Amino acid sequence: MELFVSSLKDINWAEKQLVKALKKMAKAATSDQVRQAFEQHMEQTEGQVERLVQVFEAIGKKPTSKKCEAMEGLIAEAEELIEETEEGTEVRDAALIAAAQKVEHYEIATYGTLRTLAGTLGLSDVQKILQQTLDEEKETDSLLTEIAENYVNEEAGNE
Amino acid sequence: MELFVSSLKDINWAEKQLVKALKKMAKAATSDQVRQAFEQHMEQTEGQVERLVQVFEAIGKKPTSKKCEAMEGLIAEAEELIEETEEGTEVRDAALIAAAQKVEHYEIATYGTLRTLAGTLGLSDVQKILQQTLDEEKETDSLLTEIAENYVNEEAGNE
Repeated sequence: MELFVSSLKDINWAEKQLVKALKKMAKAATSDQVRQAFEQHMEQTEGQVERLVQVFEAIGKKPTSKKCEAMEGLIAEAEELIEETEEGTEVRDAALIAAAQKVEHYEIATYGTLRTLAGTLGLSDVQKILQQTLDEEKETDSLLTEIAENYVNEEAGNE
Repeated sequence: MELFVSSLKDINWAEKQLVKALKKMAKAATSDQVRQAFEQHMEQTEGQVERLVQVFEAIGKKPTSKKCEAMEGLIAEAEELIEETEEGTEVRDAALIAAAQKVEHYEIATYGTLRTLAGTLGLSDVQKILQQTLDEEKETDSLLTEIAENYVNEEAGNE
């Protein structure tokens, strides 16, 4: 239970930071498609934070946060990529998508572990809530791959 | 090409740090199964560093590194989990597996992006090399999920 609660606090911190980061990333995006994807995922992330509140409640704990060094590093990397790439370019979008996919995979791993731990603890309702978020993260990752590949095809078509 | 080279330097740094981290994680593991999984992946990671050298050569660049803040955060998190859990316990192994899966997903996202970028650049040989590593990372992630789930089943069986 201790590891479960500690991971929960960690991802709660991470998701809240991510909402802010996605706002910046949407603003920095070049194409409408990428900006919309980030805005949409920002709203989705707010819903995921709500779900975490439900999970805390289900185990009789107050929703608290704990600084997540990995997410801090991932967001720092995204900010670095924004600084290193020029506004209004395709390479800016490629960099933003790359950074966002790293974040998505961080979350896929985290929610996967939380789901497994919830199973060990016999918390089947909690497991279902976590599964919903896990599915959303995987969908977002697939959507970003699709956008990245379309970019490639468009560029190839324009040559 | 710039984003591709910059991501390549980043993952080169990350993989080298990971070799050291996996050594520590193997030493900290409780069960033989988890220790062996980390030792095996450590050797695999050394092979992946070799492949990165091949990729640098293929694009006519010297293999260099650039500090990767995300991997630094992920490794810091793994070290924190080792400190927070007791030696010789099952929860220590569960924490180590959770940390390792976050690292794997970081790498899956990174190699996925590198592969897409190599495609944009028309580097089909490089794309194949990157695909090999991507497949290995995915296999490692699946293996770790399997180990985590077996732990769960064993525990359930012992109750």
